Amino acid sequence: MAPSEKPAWKLRAAQKRAEVHASIPAEYILPASILASPPKDTLQWLRTSGILDPTELEITETTSAPVLLDKLATGVYTAVQVLRAFFKRAALAQQLIGCCTEMFFPLALRRAEALDEYYRSSGGKAVGPLHGLPVSLKDLLDVKGVDSTEGWVGQIGKPKEKDCGLVEVLRGLGAVMYVKTNISQSIMMADSYNHVFLQSLHPRNRELISGGSSGGEGALVGSRASVIGFGTDTGGSVRIPSHLQGCYGLAPTVGRLAFADSAKARRFIAPPVVGPIASSLATMECVLAAYLGAQPWLRNPEVYPIPWRKELADAARFEPEKGGRKLRIGWYLDDGKALPQPPVTATVRRVIGLLRTAGHEVIEWSTAEHEELWQSWGKAIMDDGGKYANDSCALSGEPLIEGMIVGTDADLLSQDEAEALADLRVEHQKAYLKRWSEARLDALVTPIQPWTGLRRREWVRSEPHVGLTCIWNWLGFAALAVPVGVVDEENVKGDETWTKHQPRNNSDKINYESYDPALVMGQPVGVQVVGGRFGEEQSIAVAKVIEKLLAEDNAKKA
Amino acid sequence: MAPSEKPAWKLRAAQKRAEVHASIPAEYILPASILASPPKDTLQWLRTSGILDPTELEITETTSAPVLLDKLATGVYTAVQVLRAFFKRAALAQQLIGCCTEMFFPLALRRAEALDEYYRSSGGKAVGPLHGLPVSLKDLLDVKGVDSTEGWVGQIGKPKEKDCGLVEVLRGLGAVMYVKTNISQSIMMADSYNHVFLQSLHPRNRELISGGSSGGEGALVGSRASVIGFGTDTGGSVRIPSHLQGCYGLAPTVGRLAFADSAKARRFIAPPVVGPIASSLATMECVLAAYLGAQPWLRNPEVYPIPWRKELADAARFEPEKGGRKLRIGWYLDDGKALPQPPVTATVRRVIGLLRTAGHEVIEWSTAEHEELWQSWGKAIMDDGGKYANDSCALSGEPLIEGMIVGTDADLLSQDEAEALADLRVEHQKAYLKRWSEARLDALVTPIQPWTGLRRREWVRSEPHVGLTCIWNWLGFAALAVPVGVVDEENVKGDETWTKHQPRNNSDKINYESYDPALVMGQPVGVQVVGGRFGEEQSIAVAKVIEKLLAEDNAKKA
Repeated sequence: MAPSEKPAWKLRAAQKRAEVHASIPAEYILPASILASPPKDTLQWLRTSGILDPTELEITETTSAPVLLDKLATGVYTAVQVLRAFFKRAALAQQLIGCCTEMFFPLALRRAEALDEYYRSSGGKAVGPLHGLPVSLKDLLDVKGVDSTEGWVGQIGKPKEKDCGLVEVLRGLGAVMYVKTNISQSIMMADSYNHVFLQSLHPRNRELISGGSSGGEGALVGSRASVIGFGTDTGGSVRIPSHLQGCYGLAPTVGRLAFADSAKARRFIAPPVVGPIASSLATMECVLAAYLGAQPWLRNPEVYPIPWRKELADAARFEPEKGGRKLRIGWYLDDGKALPQPPVTATVRRVIGLLRTAGHEVIEWSTAEHEELWQSWGKAIMDDGGKYANDSCALSGEPLIEGMIVGTDADLLSQDEAEALADLRVEHQKAYLKRWSEARLDALVTPIQPWTGLRRREWVRSEPHVGLTCIWNWLGFAALAVPVGVVDEENVKGDETWTKHQPRNNSDKINYESYDPALVMGQPVGVQVVGGRFGEEQSIAVAKVIEKLLAEDNAKKA
Repeated sequence: MAPSEKPAWKLRAAQKRAEVHASIPAEYILPASILASPPKDTLQWLRTSGILDPTELEITETTSAPVLLDKLATGVYTAVQVLRAFFKRAALAQQLIGCCTEMFFPLALRRAEALDEYYRSSGGKAVGPLHGLPVSLKDLLDVKGVDSTEGWVGQIGKPKEKDCGLVEVLRGLGAVMYVKTNISQSIMMADSYNHVFLQSLHPRNRELISGGSSGGEGALVGSRASVIGFGTDTGGSVRIPSHLQGCYGLAPTVGRLAFADSAKARRFIAPPVVGPIASSLATMECVLAAYLGAQPWLRNPEVYPIPWRKELADAARFEPEKGGRKLRIGWYLDDGKALPQPPVTATVRRVIGLLRTAGHEVIEWSTAEHEELWQSWGKAIMDDGGKYANDSCALSGEPLIEGMIVGTDADLLSQDEAEALADLRVEHQKAYLKRWSEARLDALVTPIQPWTGLRRREWVRSEPHVGLTCIWNWLGFAALAVPVGVVDEENVKGDETWTKHQPRNNSDKINYESYDPALVMGQPVGVQVVGGRFGEEQSIAVAKVIEKLLAEDNAKKA
C-alpha cells in the first residue's frame, strides 16, 4: 500500500510522533548513525558514551531526591540546570527506547526559570519542599496545555485545559513537570505499546519490553532520566515496570494519592490508583511526605486526610538495637497459576533468607484463596464489556491491538451484578484483613510476576498471569516493588521444582517454555512488599530493612 | 374484607408486630387504659407519670455517656441496672409511639450480666471504654440472631448470621445493643412508616411524625430511651429526625464509620453513611472516640485510618481567651427552593446573632449552585430506577407506599451515565472545596429542613425539599444537627419575608400553606453545622461554641 493509501489514523499517529520528535531541541537529536544501530543497553550507553557531560551525569545519576533538593536549595544547582540535565537524558532515551509521549521543554523551562528567579530575588528561598525537582508523569495524568492521548489516535490534539489534582499539588511544592510517558493501549496490558507512540523498550536491553501499563515511566526512571515519576496501577501497572527496570514502585491504597481528574479510567468496583516510580526509597518517601504535607484533601475530594506517617515509615521500628522489635513476614513463591521463573523465585528466597538470618520471623503464607480474588478482579475490570476501549478505537478507526483483552458483551455487568461484585469485594477484603491481623503480619514478601523478560508483542500472546499484583488492588492493600538484584549465574538456573515442572495450564506453559536465561541475563529482578491496607509507610519501612540487609550481604560477597 | 381475606403480607406483618410486642417483658406492658388514650406528650409522661422509678429516671435522664460510663466503671451502676432502665423506657415508648422494630432483651441481658460478672471477678475492671453503655441501632444495622427487615414484609423471619462491622466494634468496647429502631419503607422518606412496623410518632406530640428515615432512632433518643444510637444518612436521614426530636445527629463523610455489612442500600455514586444520634455532644464525642480508638480499619475495609482527632474537636481552638482564634462562619436562611418556616429561620438567625455578638466573623453564603447539587444527588439515588424498592415489595406482594418516590425506568442509569454522574460529583466536590477554602470557612450554619412538623402521611404528599441536607451527602461534607430551642411565641411568627411570600413552586407552596403554628408549638428546632469534608471533629468543635453561647443566652433570659 502506498503511503497515501495508509488509513487516516496511521497518518495521524505518524504525524503526532513527528511532532513529539520535533519538540526535542536540535542539540539533543542523536546522529543518524546511532539511530541506525542503537546500543542494546541504553542505560550503559548514556553513562559511558560521553554524550552527557560530567555535571549532567552527576545530576542525573543522583538517585536521592533529598540530595538533589538540598543542592537546589543551597544553590549548588539551579532548577534550570537540573531540568536541562534530566530533559536531555529523557530526550536521548526517548530516541532509543521510546519512553515518552509528550516532551514539553519550553513549558518546563519557563517554570524552572521562574523558580530560579524566585530563589535569586528572595535571597535563596525555595518555593517549596520540592523546589526544582523534575517529575515525570504517565501519559494519562493531565498537564495543562498538553495532550493526554493515553495512546489513542482519536485523542490526539486535545490539549488539557487544566492540571490534574496531583500535578497541581506538585507544582505548588516547586516540582517541574517536563515529560509524559508511554503506556499500553487501554492500560490493560503490561507492555507499553500503542498505535500512537508505538513500543517502549527496556533501557538495559532493547530486545525486551519495559512492561506496563506505566512502562514508559519505568523505562524513563530506569534510564535515570527521571528521579521520580507517577504512574497508575489498576492491577500491577506501576509495580510490573518498576520491577523490570530495577525501580521502586508503589501501588497505594485508594485515597492516599489523587487519581487523574479526567477519571477516564474510573472503575466503580476496583478503581486504579496513582503511584510513584522512583530510583530510591528516600526519593519516594520525600516526595510522598511533601505531597501529603500539602494537605491535598483540602482541595481534592479523592484524597483522604491521612498525613504521611513518618513514624510508621521508620525502619527503627523493626531494629531491636534501636528499640524496635523484629519483623513478622509472610512469604510465598508461587500462587498456583504460573510457576515463576527461576530468578524470580530465587530472589524471593534470598530476601526471605536474609530476613530469617537476621532474626526476623518468616512464615510461609498460603495462597489458597488467591485464585478467587484475581478472578473477581478480572470480572471487575472487564465490567464495561470493553466499551471504553472500543469507543476509544472508534474515535479514529484504529483497531484494538491483536490479542488485547478488554472484555466483550459477555463481560458487561448489570447494575445488580456490579453491586453484587462490589459487595463480594468488601467480603474478600474483610476476610483477608481478618487473616492478616490474626497472623499479626507486618508484611508479605512475594514475587511480582512469573516472568523475567519478554520480547515485543509477546505479552498479549502469553496469557499472562497478573494475579501476583492485581489481588492487592482488589484487596486495597498497599504494595511496593523493591529491586533486589539482577538475573545472574547464581539465580538463573531452576531447581527441581522448576526443571521437573509439569505445566498446569496454558498461561503456565507459555511462561515455562518462554523462559530464556540467555535473553534475560543481567535484567533487574525484585520482590513485592505488601504492607497491608493503607500500608504505604509500612511497606517502605519493611523495604528499608530489606535494603539494609541486601547492602550488607552484597558487601560481604564483594 | 373479613380478616381471613386480608392479603398474606398484611397477616405476616401483623404477626411480626405481635412477635415484637410479645418480646416486651410482661412487667413493662402498659395498661389498656393508657393505650386506649395515650398521652400526647410521651416524653413528659415518661418523666412525670411515676412509671419509671427515681433510679430509672436518674439513669435514663443522664444525657452524658461519659457520666454514665463513669458510674458503670466505678460500680455506682451495674450494666444490668442501666440496661433495664433504658430497655424499660424503650419498651414504654415503643407502645406509645412505635419507635422500635426489634427488642431483644434476653440477648442484651445476657451481655450485661456477662459484663457485670467480668467487672466483679476482675476486681472492678471495665471490659472497654463503653463498658455497659446501651446503644440502639436503626433497623438496617445487622445484629447477629436478629432480623434486619428494613420494614419489608418479605424480609421478616431472616435473622442475621453475624453482627455488622459497627456492632462488632461497639460490642468489643463493652456496649450493649438492646433494640433496633423504625425506618421508612425504602429509606427514601423522612417519615418512618412502613407496612411491617407502621408509624413512628413524635415523642413530644403524637400528632406529629418523628421524621426519617432514621425516625425510630430519633424518637427513641428523643424519648431518652437511648443515650446514643446509630442511624444511616443518605440525604438527611440522621439529621432530620435528630432535628425534629431535639437531638444531636451527625452525618459524617464516607469512610469515618463502617456502613452495614449487608450493604443492601449501597450506592456507588452517593453512598449512605452511618451516623450517631445522641442526646449530647459529650456522648457523641465519647462514643466516636472510643469507636475510632478501636482502629476499626484494621478489620473493616470501609473505614479509613483516621483516628478521632481530639484536638480538632476542642472548642478552645475558637476561644481567644484560651489561646484560640475567632470562628469564621458562613450562613444562609433559604436555598431558593422552599422557604423555611418562621421558627427555622428565626433559629438560624438566633445562632448567627449570638456568634456575631460574641465577636465571631459571620458571612452570608450564596446558595447559587445548590440546586444543581441537589438535583444531581436526586439522579444518583434513583440510579437503579426503583429496582431495589420494587424487588423488595415483590418479595411479599406488599405495595409501595402511596406517593413514595423510589425512581422509575426513566431514572435508571446506564453504566456510562452512572460514570458521568460520578465524575460530575467529583467536579462538584472540587469546586465546592475550592470555594470553601478560598472563603476560609470554619463551618456553615444552615437550616435542616424547611418544615417544623408534619402529620402522619403528610410527607409523601408534600413534595418535600431535602436539598438543605442532601447536598452535604453529595459533597461528602460532614454535617451535624444541633438542637437550639423549641418553637415558641417569639419565633413562631414570620416576618415580612414570610408573610408576603409568593410560593415559587409546588413544594414551596405546600410547605408554606401547611405551616400550622399551633400544631408545632413547643417542637424542637435546631440548626445544621456543616464542618467540611471529614469535618466531624470540626462540626463538633463549632457546635460546642454554639452550645456555650446558647447556654449563656438562656441563662440571661431566665
